Amino acid sequence: MAQIATTMTKRHPIGVFDSGVGGLTVVRALRRALPGEDIVYLGDTARVPYGSKSPRTVEKYSLTCQRFLLDRGVKLVLIACNTASANALPALREASPVPVIGAVEPGADSALAATKTGHIGVIGTLGTVRSGAYAKAIAARDTAAKLSALACPLFVPLAEEGWTHDDIAALVARRYLTQLFAQDTQIDTLVLGCTHYPLLADVLGQVAREIAGHDVMVVDSAHAMAEAAKDALGSGPNKRTAAGRLDCFATDTSRLDELAPRFLGEPLTGFELVDL
Amino acid sequence: MAQIATTMTKRHPIGVFDSGVGGLTVVRALRRALPGEDIVYLGDTARVPYGSKSPRTVEKYSLTCQRFLLDRGVKLVLIACNTASANALPALREASPVPVIGAVEPGADSALAATKTGHIGVIGTLGTVRSGAYAKAIAARDTAAKLSALACPLFVPLAEEGWTHDDIAALVARRYLTQLFAQDTQIDTLVLGCTHYPLLADVLGQVAREIAGHDVMVVDSAHAMAEAAKDALGSGPNKRTAAGRLDCFATDTSRLDELAPRFLGEPLTGFELVDL
Repeated sequence: MAQIATTMTKRHPIGVFDSGVGGLTVVRALRRALPGEDIVYLGDTARVPYGSKSPRTVEKYSLTCQRFLLDRGVKLVLIACNTASANALPALREASPVPVIGAVEPGADSALAATKTGHIGVIGTLGTVRSGAYAKAIAARDTAAKLSALACPLFVPLAEEGWTHDDIAALVARRYLTQLFAQDTQIDTLVLGCTHYPLLADVLGQVAREIAGHDVMVVDSAHAMAEAAKDALGSGPNKRTAAGRLDCFATDTSRLDELAPRFLGEPLTGFELVDL
Repeated sequence: MAQIATTMTKRHPIGVFDSGVGGLTVVRALRRALPGEDIVYLGDTARVPYGSKSPRTVEKYSLTCQRFLLDRGVKLVLIACNTASANALPALREASPVPVIGAVEPGADSALAATKTGHIGVIGTLGTVRSGAYAKAIAARDTAAKLSALACPLFVPLAEEGWTHDDIAALVARRYLTQLFAQDTQIDTLVLGCTHYPLLADVLGQVAREIAGHDVMVVDSAHAMAEAAKDALGSGPNKRTAAGRLDCFATDTSRLDELAPRFLGEPLTGFELVDL
């Protein structure tokens, strides 16, 4: 990853985009790792979700999101959405003059650092799983590691309903994770390959351990993405002590006030509506 | 509703659009009620779902869908999507030179024909419930009737997973319908205000009756919409004996082959991909 080291770029914000509000979990990690940086966030909430759509559509929408961030002078682009990372990273890198960090590669790094058996499970949207992007990223790093993947479309609406610690969450988790561990009983590391899933981390970890009969580490890529952003900035990060600005944009405002703080973990001053 | 009675229009197709594939339940009813008619169906699967989006976005997307159908020379537009019907019907009628039939008015007619207590429940997407469109349609027809409404975001992914007759479907139905009947214990008619919900009709009826402790009629608007289409065509329907053509278009092709036949109830020759 090329480093960005000019004094000039210190003043420029980091851009983050997602299909919706889930990517605010990445912003949350980013604000902890790089507190002085300004951040521009775009949630493509008018066209959410990307997870059930074809690679072609996901790539098209992702390119318009990145264009919006680039027009705001960002020095770095983070693709918070796993589906966009899995399906559009090459096109986004091709179209960007600044470095682009996806969710899949940092997620694969975290998983390989966590696993002892080398058997990894990843759960995500249909688009992420179908892309095979996690399998490719894992294989490129460790040819001996074994990856099993499963699409879990119910988890996003469960997280958005706030039904994350109850009997329905447990029953849905049991249904999906039984299918995942049927593929490979030795999985000891579960990658949350979707920005919504950290809200279900407790129940997922508990149910996974019950089904597996051994310990299962749950990893999400938000922290790994923030570390990758730090590396990419090199000596460039803004070291001012004042907290950086967070400017949020969305293509639709429905439910933002209700959902966004849940993912960001702090109050939000509001989203500006944009038309892409 | 203005009737269309010229010989000329007999040759023209009926247009149906939906945010996705659920609207094929309306096509199914239409093909039974008007078997000789040609139908053009558009599913805006690239931007599905509409149900979680704001009225402004739903209206914008609905207008582009209707434009696509009008450009294909349809003599009548059916808005299969309840969310689009609830939020965009005035704008769609304003923009169309041919009659436009929404889902809400026929659904309200069916509900009022079915209820004995005058207490009606409607379940749908957030966008449909927030619009208050069912309440307005019911009040305009019968000021003594009482409507209770609830958004049920989990039902669409349940229907798409095919988890429609199991413990998870029952538990989710129980969670939502308990909330609905807490608003009004005298509800005896439940309107399925979303094209996906007919796939869950069995479990919804059963759970509703258990919670209510009395009989609950389950009504969906697909048949009422087909009857409204028949009325609108007046003496104009195509009376040829050969089955009409069904041409299907979609803005994204992901999962269409898997999902579409479930809603249509017959095999499909395929969707043509269009860019809106």
